[in-house]
Amino acid sequence: MENGSRHVLKPMDSEQLREYGHRVVDFIADYYKTIESFTVLSQVQPGYLHNLLPDSAPDHPETVEQVLDDVKTKILPGVTHWQSPNFFAYYPSNSSVAGFLGEMLSAGLGIVGFSWVTSPAATELEMIVLDWLAKLLNLPEHFLCKGNGGGVIQGSASEAILVVMIAARDKVLRSAGKNSLGKLVVYSSDQTHSALQKACQIAGIHPENCRVLKADSSTNYALRPELLQEAVSRDLEAGLIPFFLCGNVGTTSSAAVDPLAALGKIAKSNEIWFHVDAAYAGSACICPEYRQYIDGVETADSFNMNAHKWFLTNFDCSLLWVKDQHALTEALSTNPEFLKNKASQANLVVDYKDWQIPLGRRFRSLKLWMVLRLYGAETLKNYIRNHIKLAKDLEQLVSQDPNFEVITPRIFSLVCFRMVPIDDDENKCNSRNLELLEAVNSSGKLFISHTALSGKIVLRCAIGAPLTEEKHVKETWKVIQEKASYLLRK
Amino acid sequence: MENGSRHVLKPMDSEQLREYGHRVVDFIADYYKTIESFTVLSQVQPGYLHNLLPDSAPDHPETVEQVLDDVKTKILPGVTHWQSPNFFAYYPSNSSVAGFLGEMLSAGLGIVGFSWVTSPAATELEMIVLDWLAKLLNLPEHFLCKGNGGGVIQGSASEAILVVMIAARDKVLRSAGKNSLGKLVVYSSDQTHSALQKACQIAGIHPENCRVLKADSSTNYALRPELLQEAVSRDLEAGLIPFFLCGNVGTTSSAAVDPLAALGKIAKSNEIWFHVDAAYAGSACICPEYRQYIDGVETADSFNMNAHKWFLTNFDCSLLWVKDQHALTEALSTNPEFLKNKASQANLVVDYKDWQIPLGRRFRSLKLWMVLRLYGAETLKNYIRNHIKLAKDLEQLVSQDPNFEVITPRIFSLVCFRMVPIDDDENKCNSRNLELLEAVNSSGKLFISHTALSGKIVLRCAIGAPLTEEKHVKETWKVIQEKASYLLRK
Repeated sequence: MENGSRHVLKPMDSEQLREYGHRVVDFIADYYKTIESFTVLSQVQPGYLHNLLPDSAPDHPETVEQVLDDVKTKILPGVTHWQSPNFFAYYPSNSSVAGFLGEMLSAGLGIVGFSWVTSPAATELEMIVLDWLAKLLNLPEHFLCKGNGGGVIQGSASEAILVVMIAARDKVLRSAGKNSLGKLVVYSSDQTHSALQKACQIAGIHPENCRVLKADSSTNYALRPELLQEAVSRDLEAGLIPFFLCGNVGTTSSAAVDPLAALGKIAKSNEIWFHVDAAYAGSACICPEYRQYIDGVETADSFNMNAHKWFLTNFDCSLLWVKDQHALTEALSTNPEFLKNKASQANLVVDYKDWQIPLGRRFRSLKLWMVLRLYGAETLKNYIRNHIKLAKDLEQLVSQDPNFEVITPRIFSLVCFRMVPIDDDENKCNSRNLELLEAVNSSGKLFISHTALSGKIVLRCAIGAPLTEEKHVKETWKVIQEKASYLLRK
Repeated sequence: MENGSRHVLKPMDSEQLREYGHRVVDFIADYYKTIESFTVLSQVQPGYLHNLLPDSAPDHPETVEQVLDDVKTKILPGVTHWQSPNFFAYYPSNSSVAGFLGEMLSAGLGIVGFSWVTSPAATELEMIVLDWLAKLLNLPEHFLCKGNGGGVIQGSASEAILVVMIAARDKVLRSAGKNSLGKLVVYSSDQTHSALQKACQIAGIHPENCRVLKADSSTNYALRPELLQEAVSRDLEAGLIPFFLCGNVGTTSSAAVDPLAALGKIAKSNEIWFHVDAAYAGSACICPEYRQYIDGVETADSFNMNAHKWFLTNFDCSLLWVKDQHALTEALSTNPEFLKNKASQANLVVDYKDWQIPLGRRFRSLKLWMVLRLYGAETLKNYIRNHIKLAKDLEQLVSQDPNFEVITPRIFSLVCFRMVPIDDDENKCNSRNLELLEAVNSSGKLFISHTALSGKIVLRCAIGAPLTEEKHVKETWKVIQEKASYLLRK
């Protein structure tokens, strides 16, 4: 490779791939071996890398050693270590040996599976594996691939919610007329992920038609069906068209769970598309004891769970099931001559290009298939249960400390807590909790994040990194307590 | 792992990653060693995989050997081998050792870089590497990251065109009022990729406001500026709002190149957002002798080139540059409490989540960086030149055979040709060419695709797979000639 500039490049030499591939496998294995030695949240300053790298691409080849050396000395300091056992921020983004191998295979085969014909195995494995997972989740039959429904891998929950919103929008506009866009109304609780707002922006839903319904501690931040019913009735009276409802199973702020069955009933009787966002908590619902949290999913038009969050499948792998695939394909199909082929024309196959925003797509089902096969359903359930147990233990530790309070009852693996207010001063309490957040995260020993619930700043500890064990959670709690004591002494 | 069901799973064991990682590297290296032995276009029947795999996920772990064995015996027969040296369909989707190593590193680090703080290196390397490539392409200064502009990696050209269309739409609607959506008009030639139509569908542009302007052989399928000017004037007179123009450098059908400077002038004087889609041919423009084809790009508001097509960077890696990043972020930003952080709040950093549809994003700049460093700019130019030379040779072979004709003059590495009509019967000629397509592709020896130009079915041979050498092109031409002779004898 080093002398490549003088020759025509042979960029896919199998023996070079073997040699360098082995080297990078060792590099990554060594990374995981030492992952606890890194500062979890990167502490670099904005612009740090600009000074470390040249201003332009090299004219001539450099060596793998040079690049890996730069990864070590220049890139890694700027990495926030999502796979660290001490990463508790946001929600986890699981990686695993199986997921990693699946990514390698997918990158190695290098196919682009937009239409069935461009690699039948990519489309078919995706259909099969999404059916497998639908069965593990005990989803209703109409989400399986055999009828009008089916599953598809999207890049993210944002894309999942966008494509179903477009499908729902166009379905309504086909009868109401395309000039009715300004009448379409979207419903959700104020705990819903910002992905919904973004989807509305992209789909052109008027901001004043987005009903962000208040949820509070009285329902543990779940949406109250009465509020939805009232809002829908008001909008109908005003001549508007209710068309889309997003229900949550495990919100990003506090893992709140909306009452799906009651919401779905209202949606159904008003012909509203009901989307269920279970991006994080969906994974837990493969365990029979947690399946109750998606009870009512049979009333939904679409259901989303991110295998790349808490299901050991490397990002990106967001699983979307729909009841009516034709609503999706009617909104998203194009049929240019250069992509026509016999199987598609004869309507014998699924072409996933018409279920998603992009045309191209990677062979992402491979990694999910490998996770399911190399670990097996029972082991995966225990994996989830272990995280939930660790969170339960932490919840107890928090509740035993008089300086702290648990803010919402923990359901899955997220613990929401804060330092208690002193003299009822909520403002000072918020500042103190933000100070605590800053103090623990800048220690480099762990990374937690925050949210706001009913005006309170709340700290979030989401357990779910693949390497997290009991000792990490205990040590994390110790660091938080120490930093809190220091703040209180100040 | 095999006994994992009895224990809590340790899914990210570094020594297991090392052992299995090496095994999969060997699997992939062996695949490339034997890639020419596979049928290029998969010949399986729809539904083939359903009968080969179980109906549900296993309860207990299986071994890596079992899975790799299934990949070999069940998946590979259903794979269409995009990396085969005999893959000439659509446009290439390059993989390379460097791109593969970059994907491995990205999957290995397992970060999610939506905001700067979630891994500063991911955002900063992306900015740096996009600047590197902008300089290689000699793009105007305003596309560099230092000012209001900048580059970003999107998943695909479809997403690139969608985000800039949304940005342009919302910019206009902010002044014209959101009820003006029905007045917005989009312009392009009829040779433009279906990604534009899809973006219009998603963005809610009314279908009757999509001006698909006819291009024909008189301009080698480039859009005539007069046609654009006429259409814009007509729409203005009708009280409509021209707002988006897509120009092409290397269309999917025939690699046609629109006259950017002339189109850009019209766009500018009418305040139309001018997007340039150079998804395929943009790569060639790093060579000084091909840079002319993007002359006029300085009049564009956005420019897109897919590094995952012809630039050795594994899918997905679609490079988008914009002149005004604020137009993007105003349309796509959300700012939930749970993502707030000091660096973002202080406006010190770029948060790429606001430049794209999804929230999450992989560390995709790593693979582009590795391609640029391990190969170097000069070698990459020669790589492109070699493919173009091979295409030139094929063009000559075609033009020398009286049974065939070249349909449009070749500019880059795509040769458009067909069997000539007999007795001026165009219909029969079209059928015969489709028969030829079927015959060569079902031989398994190669894969070419087709398009339609002015009603003629045209065969496309796009040279650009990383392993393609002179002998493959010659052999491919021989197969095509043989199958054609057979059809003519019939």
